[in-house]
This record gives sequence, structure tokens and C-alpha cells, in this order.
Amino acid sequence: MPDAAARPPLPPGSTIGILGCGQLGRMLALAAARLGFRTHVYCPETGPAFDVASASTRAAFDDAAALDAFARAVDTVTYEFENVSVATVRHLARNVPVRPSARALEVAQDRLAEKEFIAGLAIPVAPFHAVDGPEDLAAGMVRLAGPAILKTRRLGYDGKGQVSLEPGGDSAAAWSALGAEPCVLESRIAFACELSALIVRGLDGAIAAYHCPRNTHESGILRRSVVPSGLPETDLAEAREIAGRIAAALDYVGVLAVEMFHLGPGAPDGARLIVNEIAPRVHNSGHWTIEACGVSQFENHMRAIAGWPLGTTARHSDAEMVNLIGREALDWQRLAGEPGLCLHLYGKHHARAGRKMGHVTRLFPKTAKP
Amino acid sequence: MPDAAARPPLPPGSTIGILGCGQLGRMLALAAARLGFRTHVYCPETGPAFDVASASTRAAFDDAAALDAFARAVDTVTYEFENVSVATVRHLARNVPVRPSARALEVAQDRLAEKEFIAGLAIPVAPFHAVDGPEDLAAGMVRLAGPAILKTRRLGYDGKGQVSLEPGGDSAAAWSALGAEPCVLESRIAFACELSALIVRGLDGAIAAYHCPRNTHESGILRRSVVPSGLPETDLAEAREIAGRIAAALDYVGVLAVEMFHLGPGAPDGARLIVNEIAPRVHNSGHWTIEACGVSQFENHMRAIAGWPLGTTARHSDAEMVNLIGREALDWQRLAGEPGLCLHLYGKHHARAGRKMGHVTRLFPKTAKP
Repeated sequence: MPDAAARPPLPPGSTIGILGCGQLGRMLALAAARLGFRTHVYCPETGPAFDVASASTRAAFDDAAALDAFARAVDTVTYEFENVSVATVRHLARNVPVRPSARALEVAQDRLAEKEFIAGLAIPVAPFHAVDGPEDLAAGMVRLAGPAILKTRRLGYDGKGQVSLEPGGDSAAAWSALGAEPCVLESRIAFACELSALIVRGLDGAIAAYHCPRNTHESGILRRSVVPSGLPETDLAEAREIAGRIAAALDYVGVLAVEMFHLGPGAPDGARLIVNEIAPRVHNSGHWTIEACGVSQFENHMRAIAGWPLGTTARHSDAEMVNLIGREALDWQRLAGEPGLCLHLYGKHHARAGRKMGHVTRLFPKTAKP
Repeated sequence: MPDAAARPPLPPGSTIGILGCGQLGRMLALAAARLGFRTHVYCPETGPAFDVASASTRAAFDDAAALDAFARAVDTVTYEFENVSVATVRHLARNVPVRPSARALEVAQDRLAEKEFIAGLAIPVAPFHAVDGPEDLAAGMVRLAGPAILKTRRLGYDGKGQVSLEPGGDSAAAWSALGAEPCVLESRIAFACELSALIVRGLDGAIAAYHCPRNTHESGILRRSVVPSGLPETDLAEAREIAGRIAAALDYVGVLAVEMFHLGPGAPDGARLIVNEIAPRVHNSGHWTIEACGVSQFENHMRAIAGWPLGTTARHSDAEMVNLIGREALDWQRLAGEPGLCLHLYGKHHARAGRKMGHVTRLFPKTAKP
């Protein structure tokens, strides 16, 4: 347990460093400003977060001199994406606190390490098999004995770096398609729906949880998150408990998202959830917290890494969040005029296919259902 | 009526110029970012808005070269305070749209012009008397025949530039205390409570209104705003209608705040409201809209000046906003830990007495009362 008393909270006016400059970094910087913090964004290329940060550094993640100058300029560091190099974080951590720690990154960056870590906490994951070559893949298909997904161990997101496999399918082709690099083979889960647990853990180990949204993906990209999920409260409580257990095991600080499959009401009580993956950061499925909660996931992440008390995660409204992907954001004029719609645009210049350009949130009066 | 069709909405990625760099500019910049706009702050000194703007100019408001460069760098200009010089706005307006227009500033900057303008719309104001010298003041005291307030015509805010006068009091001393400059003498109204109408008017003339908060001042500075106000719906509708009439008469674009006195239930129906003053900008009494509405006053101001459709002004929760003044903000650690409290700090470095350092908002489930 960290000795929180030895680490006083960062006072307003302190500077939060953010690694990465996408929309998550942008919304983190906006939330930090609300609490009176300055922000300093570090990224090899420019992006949405540069426009709202108090300061910025454009340099490579392995530029030691630039990292050292960045560490001197900030009071603590966080990151907006899980593929920042562990070496970068360890380098910074010699001179400035980095929250969440490198340990969370190590686990989240490697799908095999992630599965082993979560399974090691006695939390259900899909059956999996390490694949370092075509022979492993063939053996894994026999062992898992059903439809499976082959995923690269590293650098996968938004459905990238994965391919589906049927029993008897061309496993050599799948192996080649992913670049013949280390992979993990997972059983494909016949889930009823997807949900995510969004929790925040403070520097003192306190944990607060948002309502778990029900998520819908299209082409591997999140399309929609809805609260309330309509799932039984016992399952939602279990989802939050699982996320809390993972966070505690990592001595995690900040917002942690745990993506899960729900197996449907037919599965046995207490065995309806399977963890798919974790994201050691604020998460797309929590964007509705900006409007539907007094304190958003972005502000609570900032509170946690600054050593502040956590803010309320209570939800005052029901909500639906829908991503604007690629050219959908070009329709901003119509969206801006849709009654009651809360529109968010990320300031990206090119509406490339599959690129998250913004999102919209609709609020509804809160219902009693979980 | 403006020809909105000839002025297409500013696309996301456009740059909004903001004159002034206080907390209102800061919250305007944060709201602009949410819609994908860039911001460029122009101010003679640094301040809270610099930390979140995409670009900034530190130059005097009468620096023609700096103003011209600013006009070239932005797509439209707005302001966060009503004491920006009309000459500055007229200079900029030759090259770039400025919204709200210089006309609104002219009226709001001069308490006499303001009173005459509003009275000219057949809207009740306190009885007033122009004072250009001690003789005018003596005559005014006789004419108003009761307790009065002497106010400088220009540059008054947060209770500055005014002094109370009783019949038979030392009017020469009052005149000297305000610097022997042009003033207006107003009857002191025995009001039951203060409220403000917060409306937004689009480039096409469309008007949307927030719920009118009930306001409490201390030492001339806003302390607290509460919604719902608890005032009769007929009076609230009249308050909104009055604000709309003022906005239309000014061909106003953006958020307009109209501060009013409510004379209490004993006053005759339709004659319970007296306009105190207008603020041609987002207003402290509307800060609760950040949490309690889907679209805040700051975002709606940005939507209006960008020529966008107005966003919803509907309130999903009841709310109470309390300002943090001077050293109260030093208590941030306790405030951050108060359950359910939404904390805003403006990033100001020195907690001077009377300075607005931040605010807190509490949300409550929405009640049916107006």
C-alpha cells in the first residue's frame, strides 16, 4: 500500500505532463484545467491535445534529452494510450512520478502477459494459447477446439492485429497475415453483450466506480456505449469488483477500464463475465461521464494522479454515447442542430476512414433500472 | 434582421479570438475546444485563459499593429468582459466579425446609456438621474426622494465605483469619493431578491433561455446562484421575455445576462421585475450550466458567435453555485474531498481579497417547481 501521507497532493497551479496527444489527451487537459492545473503534452507528432495544453514538447519517445527536460518541467506524468514504451516511462520515472506506473503498461501492452496476469487473479478470461510459430498455432487450435481469434501480443487496438480462425481453417495464412510475430490464440466467446468496468483508484488506494456501460463495436471499433446497461445488478457489482481487484493487484493509480463479455442470463450466477482486456487509461466507453456525472472520468483521472480525493462517480442521468467515425464528423452542422444532442469534436484535420473524429452524447431522465 | 444565409457557420477547426484572459475567457476557450475550435486569446497581461488557448497575443488593446495581426489570425472575435474599449472592437470589426457587436458594449459600458436604452424599450428600471456635478447630485436626491446609489457611469463592476446615499446625507463627499466623474444616481430598490435572465441569441435571431437563477451578493460580489429560483413561473417568463427584447433591440449575438430585482409577491402581477444592469457576455450567475445542462452558457456563446444552431438550454438537475473568493480557494483540499461537490479553480496565482478564484457547484435531483 503506498504511503499516501508521504506524497502530498499536487496543489492547483502544478503542471501535469501527458504522454500522447490524441482526443483522450485533449479531454484530460480540459479536465485538468477545470481544477486549476497546467498541462504539458509530449508527443512525437502534433495532435488534438496540443491546442488546449499549456505547454507542449514535440519529440521522439526515445529522445532522452527531451524526456529529461519534460520531467523537469512537470510535477507528475500520465499517459493517454497504452502503447507508450515502457522504457520511456521508466526513464521519466527516475525524475518524476508517472501514474499509472510502468507495471500497468507492461501488463496491458502484451496480450499474453495480460491474460496470464488476470487469470492469475482467478478472474475468468477466454481460454488462450501462446503462439510463437505456426506449430504453436496448430496445437492451440486443437487445444481450444473451436472458433478462435489470433491476436498479436503487441500494438493491437480498435480491431487491428487480429484475425478470426475456424477449426480446420488455414492457420498458416493467419500466422502470415499478422506478420509472423508473437501472438496469442484465444477462444472466440459467444457473448450476449459487451460491457466495461470504469473505475478510478486514488493514490491512497481508495476506489470509486462509474456505472458499467453496455458497449457495441462495429468493425472492431467502439460505436456506442449506453448506461444503464440493463444487466442484473449482481453482475454489475461483480464487474466492478473484478476491476477493483485488478487495480489493487497493480497498485494502480488513475482510471482503469476493463472490457468484459457478458455471457447472458443463461450462464450460471457469478460466472457470467469474462474479461477481454484492460486499458490503463481513460476510455472511450466512459465519454458519457462528461455530461451524465458531476465529475467525469477525465477529471477523476487527474484527481487520482494528483493525489487528490476522488470525485463523485454518481450518474444523474441516463446516457447514450455514439462515436463519430471518419466522415461521419463532416455532418457536424446537422448534428449541432439536433435537439438535446451534446456534440464533441476533437479538432482533427483529416476525416480518415476508421478514425475517431468526435462523439455525441444524449441524456435521458434517470431510470431506476441498474 | 441579419442575413444569416449570407454568413455560413464557422467550420470546426476555425479559430475564435477572445479579448480578455480571465476565468470567463478560460471557460469560453474550454467550451470552444469541445466543439473542435481553436482559440486565440488577446490580452495586455497574462491570465487564466492563456493556459488553455491554442494561441495568444499579449499586447495593449490600442496596439493597432497587434490588433491587425490578431484579426488576420482568427475567424471571428468575442470578448469576455464589457469594459473592452469600443475603439478596439470597432478597429477589429473592420477586418473580422466581432460578436456581440460594439453596440452592445456601448450600451453596457455606460450606466446612463444603459438605463436610457432599457427604459426606452418600456422595460422597468430604477428611477435614475444623470449626475455631472454636485448640483446634479443634489437635484437628483430631491427628485428621487429616498435612499439612492450613486454610480460612476463607466468601469464599475463587482460593487466598485458606487456609494450609497441617504436623503440629507453628504452628497458632496459621495461625489468626491467616486472621483468627481460622470455618474448616474439611482433610487435604491427595496427588492425581495435578485435574479438574472441568461439567454443566448443566434446569428439567425433564434433565442434560447436558461432557467433564471436567484442570486445572492455579498459586498457587491456575487456569492451564490440557485436554480430553480422558486419564483413564480409567470415572473420567470417575463424575465426571459425582457432579456429577449433587449437582445433583439441590440441585434445581439451570443449569451446575454440581464440582472434584475424581484419586488416580491406583494407587487402587482406583471410589475414585479426591475432591470438592474446587463452584461453582454457569459455571466458568473450561469456557471451552474456547466454541470446542470447538456450545453453550458459557454458552449452556447461559442455556438452563437460561430453561427451554429443553439444547443439545448434544458436543465437536467437542480443546482447551486457558490463562488470561491480570495483566500477561500486555499481550502481546495477540503473542497475537493466534499462528496458530490463539483470544483472549479481558475488557475490564478494570487488569492487577493475579493478576487474570484474559482467556484463550486452542487447538483440535486430536479424538482418540479419553477
